[in-house]
Amino acid sequence: MQLLEERIMRDGVVKAGDVLKVDNFLNHQIDVDLLNEMGKEFYRLFGDKQIDKIVTIESSGIAIAAITAQYFHVPLVFAKKTQSINIDGEVLSTKIQSFTHKRVYDVIISKKYIKEGEHVLLIDDFLANGCAVQGLIEMIKQAGAVVEGVGIAIEKGQMQGGKLLRDEGLQVESLAIIESMDDKTGKITFRH
Amino acid sequence: MQLLEERIMRDGVVKAGDVLKVDNFLNHQIDVDLLNEMGKEFYRLFGDKQIDKIVTIESSGIAIAAITAQYFHVPLVFAKKTQSINIDGEVLSTKIQSFTHKRVYDVIISKKYIKEGEHVLLIDDFLANGCAVQGLIEMIKQAGAVVEGVGIAIEKGQMQGGKLLRDEGLQVESLAIIESMDDKTGKITFRH
Repeated sequence: MQLLEERIMRDGVVKAGDVLKVDNFLNHQIDVDLLNEMGKEFYRLFGDKQIDKIVTIESSGIAIAAITAQYFHVPLVFAKKTQSINIDGEVLSTKIQSFTHKRVYDVIISKKYIKEGEHVLLIDDFLANGCAVQGLIEMIKQAGAVVEGVGIAIEKGQMQGGKLLRDEGLQVESLAIIESMDDKTGKITFRH
Repeated sequence: MQLLEERIMRDGVVKAGDVLKVDNFLNHQIDVDLLNEMGKEFYRLFGDKQIDKIVTIESSGIAIAAITAQYFHVPLVFAKKTQSINIDGEVLSTKIQSFTHKRVYDVIISKKYIKEGEHVLLIDDFLANGCAVQGLIEMIKQAGAVVEGVGIAIEKGQMQGGKLLRDEGLQVESLAIIESMDDKTGKITFRH
């Protein structure tokens, strides 16, 4: 998506260790008009599918997922990170390793909000090693629901997450895929 | 706002200790079409003011704030809760006591995203004792910016948060104000 690539070129900051900071427009300060264009694009890519629900994970996936859900007119459910996991049989749960924060989170979704047989679109801001999306998929499967696709704002193409998901046969659509980035020059190239 | 009151009556669950669970439509599963109507209403209430930015706090404020920001066509900034506060002079920060979780969070906003002289609208899902909003106001003031108003989805009118903010002369608009609720009968009454 050209608009997003241009914005990454303009405002993204490359840091050492394959870190791309986009907190100017995507995950701290949020350009809601840009997110609207991204939501429309996800609808163009997935709008012909049966989508009953959009699922994301807190916190930085919520804004893009909420804006996107408007185009599908379906509820959004966000998975919650928790330290004090209280597995009382009422939640779907998994563990997710954060690439950014180098730690493992317990993540839960109330069973009430993902029903057997529902068709789910996953939306998230970043796809790197794919741990967050794989964790969401695991919870969707626990519920007996179906993952119809995965919509990502920015995929780090130099990492394995996207490849692994596509190898499983999933439709993964990333609005920008980083081919490579260099924290010394700040140069970012995209895969098309 | 009648639509929201009706939804609270239908799907809200009153629990002991003045807890109102609205995770069916507001803060776990999210009815984005309802949020759109709420965003429009905030625009009706604050649209005549100069608003340069909308500010909320993760996680449950993000969806309603993002949807609302669309009507104002301004960026959204969300304050982040952090355990490992790293005050390097680059962040606005405060401590906020959570009513729901009975604990104190360090909360930060990058100084880059609230500028001196900016006019800010605060949006959050709940107003109870007002600690979250007071913390946000403190950070806005640290930045030398101006709080133009506070938009809340659900205010617990039986608690002091709203009164304290209004006594400071702030325009606080809550789309539903709980007058009282009873966890034994489930009965909820609203203030008008």
